[in-house]
Amino acid sequence: MNSHTGQKYSLGDLVTRFGGELLGDASIQIRQVASLERAGLEHICFFSDVRYRSQLQNTSAGAIILGRKERNETALPRIICDNPYAYFAKVSSLLNPEPATMPGIHPLAVVDDSATIDSSASIGAFVVVGKNVKVGVGTVIGPGCHIGDNVSIGDDARLYASIVVYHDCLIGDRVILHSGVVIGADGFGFANDEGRWVKIPQIGRVLIGNDVEIGANTTIDRGALEDTVIEDGVKLDNLIMVAHNVRIGAHSAMAGCVGIAGSAKIGNRCTVGGAGMILGHLEIVDGVNVSAGTLITKSITKPGTYTSAMPFSKHQDWLKNAAHLRHMDKIVEKIRALEQKINELERKKS
Amino acid sequence: MNSHTGQKYSLGDLVTRFGGELLGDASIQIRQVASLERAGLEHICFFSDVRYRSQLQNTSAGAIILGRKERNETALPRIICDNPYAYFAKVSSLLNPEPATMPGIHPLAVVDDSATIDSSASIGAFVVVGKNVKVGVGTVIGPGCHIGDNVSIGDDARLYASIVVYHDCLIGDRVILHSGVVIGADGFGFANDEGRWVKIPQIGRVLIGNDVEIGANTTIDRGALEDTVIEDGVKLDNLIMVAHNVRIGAHSAMAGCVGIAGSAKIGNRCTVGGAGMILGHLEIVDGVNVSAGTLITKSITKPGTYTSAMPFSKHQDWLKNAAHLRHMDKIVEKIRALEQKINELERKKS
Amino acid sequence: MNSHTGQKYSLGDLVTRFGGELLGDASIQIRQVASLERAGLEHICFFSDVRYRSQLQNTSAGAIILGRKERNETALPRIICDNPYAYFAKVSSLLNPEPATMPGIHPLAVVDDSATIDSSASIGAFVVVGKNVKVGVGTVIGPGCHIGDNVSIGDDARLYASIVVYHDCLIGDRVILHSGVVIGADGFGFANDEGRWVKIPQIGRVLIGNDVEIGANTTIDRGALEDTVIEDGVKLDNLIMVAHNVRIGAHSAMAGCVGIAGSAKIGNRCTVGGAGMILGHLEIVDGVNVSAGTLITKSITKPGTYTSAMPFSKHQDWLKNAAHLRHMDKIVEKIRALEQKINELERKKS
Repeated sequence: MNSHTGQKYSLGDLVTRFGGELLGDASIQIRQVASLERAGLEHICFFSDVRYRSQLQNTSAGAIILGRKERNETALPRIICDNPYAYFAKVSSLLNPEPATMPGIHPLAVVDDSATIDSSASIGAFVVVGKNVKVGVGTVIGPGCHIGDNVSIGDDARLYASIVVYHDCLIGDRVILHSGVVIGADGFGFANDEGRWVKIPQIGRVLIGNDVEIGANTTIDRGALEDTVIEDGVKLDNLIMVAHNVRIGAHSAMAGCVGIAGSAKIGNRCTVGGAGMILGHLEIVDGVNVSAGTLITKSITKPGTYTSAMPFSKHQDWLKNAAHLRHMDKIVEKIRALEQKINELERKKS
Repeated sequence: MNSHTGQKYSLGDLVTRFGGELLGDASIQIRQVASLERAGLEHICFFSDVRYRSQLQNTSAGAIILGRKERNETALPRIICDNPYAYFAKVSSLLNPEPATMPGIHPLAVVDDSATIDSSASIGAFVVVGKNVKVGVGTVIGPGCHIGDNVSIGDDARLYASIVVYHDCLIGDRVILHSGVVIGADGFGFANDEGRWVKIPQIGRVLIGNDVEIGANTTIDRGALEDTVIEDGVKLDNLIMVAHNVRIGAHSAMAGCVGIAGSAKIGNRCTVGGAGMILGHLEIVDGVNVSAGTLITKSITKPGTYTSAMPFSKHQDWLKNAAHLRHMDKIVEKIRALEQKINELERKKS
Repeated sequence: MNSHTGQKYSLGDLVTRFGGELLGDASIQIRQVASLERAGLEHICFFSDVRYRSQLQNTSAGAIILGRKERNETALPRIICDNPYAYFAKVSSLLNPEPATMPGIHPLAVVDDSATIDSSASIGAFVVVGKNVKVGVGTVIGPGCHIGDNVSIGDDARLYASIVVYHDCLIGDRVILHSGVVIGADGFGFANDEGRWVKIPQIGRVLIGNDVEIGANTTIDRGALEDTVIEDGVKLDNLIMVAHNVRIGAHSAMAGCVGIAGSAKIGNRCTVGGAGMILGHLEIVDGVNVSAGTLITKSITKPGTYTSAMPFSKHQDWLKNAAHLRHMDKIVEKIRALEQKINELERKKS
């Protein structure tokens, strides 16, 4: 585990900052967060799932964050609150601040004279910044990033190394982009002209709201005619493909390897599990959860969880089974034939 | 929407360049393409699907491109042609030319003395160009690209920022590579030697034909012994994996997140929908369409559309359903037993 | 095909180095490996699959590597050994050595003064090396790589161009990372706080053992609290997503487009086929093979091969078939009803 900071906080400090009810010695010093299994006296942990009760009983942690119902699950010094995991997140952010970055433009960056870079921003080595780019207060652009003409990046954003943002895209405040992210490459638009593909220029942009985080090597294509839009608070994991003209509603979250095809509109507070795929030109309402490995082929008009995953088997069993999966229509026909015959037998009987 | 150009063209100009029949005032000036919904007087739109008839009726566009059958669907100034979408593509390319790039080699690029860079080509900042590399007329290599030894890139190609081309690969004319593309990394070849993997050196190349476009973060591996080949006019979307020794036939197109395993041979004018997967050592004839989310496990010898996607359900319904999917063989057995019993009952009857 | 070397070896040299039984003229000179179909007199091939017998009979190769049982399948000069493919791998590595790289730090690299770079290591142009980084003997870091603070890279490792390694990660000896790889980006960890996502700082590292190879644009996230671990000898193909806290056991191998969700523990000597997906918090024992396109949703406690792929059909057949796949529970119910009716008919009969 790394430790960006040696700074400690007392339990009293923590409840002053983040609220909650403190049971135990307010002067106990906390240096870092940890798992129940690995924690020592200077660590704080969270507990929110009774399946881990034995880990809680055996932990050597200095303090625990836990929910109101679980207040008596341990006798250790503890903070009682409504949402232990969110509380833990805030404590961990306090204990693990982003390392300070020197403001200023690295001498080996190439920044166009027309760009407006806030004096508190940091531009790393081998960065290229195009014409009319704006970079806001406290924003950090890591080494090797390429920021196209007319791009605007808000305040306190963090672009890690080797990110590309194509021309004209807008990126909000407190956005985090991880390495290898590509924002604003051309959407996949071609007209077929007698067997050959003619490119449709992609003249839309990508608009990314505030508080968005995007994982490593994820790509978000620019719109064909209008814009691709990622709303506030969206969290995207690694290696996700967001196609042109997609809109992802506020506070939606998607796990790794997800694909969203062109012009799909995803609602607010949706989730998509790993490798979920959403076809193009669909609309998905707010509050939909798509399970991992699930292919969504039609619009979804009601909140809830949707799944299409095929269950796995031992390969030998699958071999016996799989061929039948292609002949469901015949199986259903056979059942109908049986039903008719039985009805006939019963009729004759009576 | 961006606008790389302020240049306008009259409807008369357009039919002079691209053909078609003009109905209406030839002097009407067009500045940009747009969707029917967002268009204004200086915009031209296309119409090819009667499902959007109400949008056509309500549009404020200055002119419409539409097919011969639809010639009377609007009274607006219009261009009648055989393929409205391809016509629209050409008009849009005219109105949205690539921004001009300054020819020459950026002073912060590292270009080997043995490389042959055409004087009209543009090599961006922080580019590395290896030994004996050739770069053709009008080709643009964006910032941060790395071009390995002996690579040849044709004329009028466009490599966006942060692309890697490994040694010995060949790239044709008018090829477009988007950011994060990796061409020619080692294929995945290992021999198992008593539980350990021994690397098979990958000594083939990647050969990319003319007019190919490859989306962001797509990877195309070099061949093991022979070459991986992407033929003319192929269009690949983002985050696609093309393994070693694959051949993709001319004018085939593949959507995002597709995977093509080693030594698969894909015919001409094929399409693969998003997240389609094609296993290794297969052959797929010309004119095959693989649906989104479909896994191709055997060679395909006839053109047509092929699908394996599992339909999605509400999760509660899926839970009731999914377990049975693993026991198709038992279901089929039960049906056979029923058929036998009924045959017996009927025989006794008669 | 490239040829990094003009050096030839006699068959006698090869058996001296790698063992095996030589049948034929020991003085025959071999310049390169090749496929049976393309080989000429200076090429050596391997033969291990009797399906390619006709290729063996027609080859123009100078020599063949083959197994003990197949010793008489050809009369050509040949090397007989236990594992022809592994033998071929070793011969190919001898004939195709990595091109020599000049040791030293490129004048356009930015290396922190506190970094320890072995004098035999090579640091390419536009590389950024952070504080306290260690780079071992003979290691090559290609152009445009970004190595975060406190990273340690072992001996004889090879990082191709444009790789990012975040702070604090450890990389072993003889590791090969291909372009676009991102090691140590933040894992996908968020607590939901009244509809908004609060980031969980990811304070673990990535630990990569010896002899690991990782394909282009693959991403391996750092651990949330503890570390993500890739053990010795693991081979990962392109565009793979390894989430936080995953452990991949020694000598496991995974094909392109695989996803491993958070905290999954994969055993030793496992394989995962292309686009296989393994859900989070699972444990998979040693020696498990997951088929291509298979979603693993539960822990696997026994070695063997596991599959969930849905077989593909012509789209017209699939359309007739697919709707039924969502109604397996109803089909099973109907069968039960039929069974009851038949039992009744039989009872009445008797």
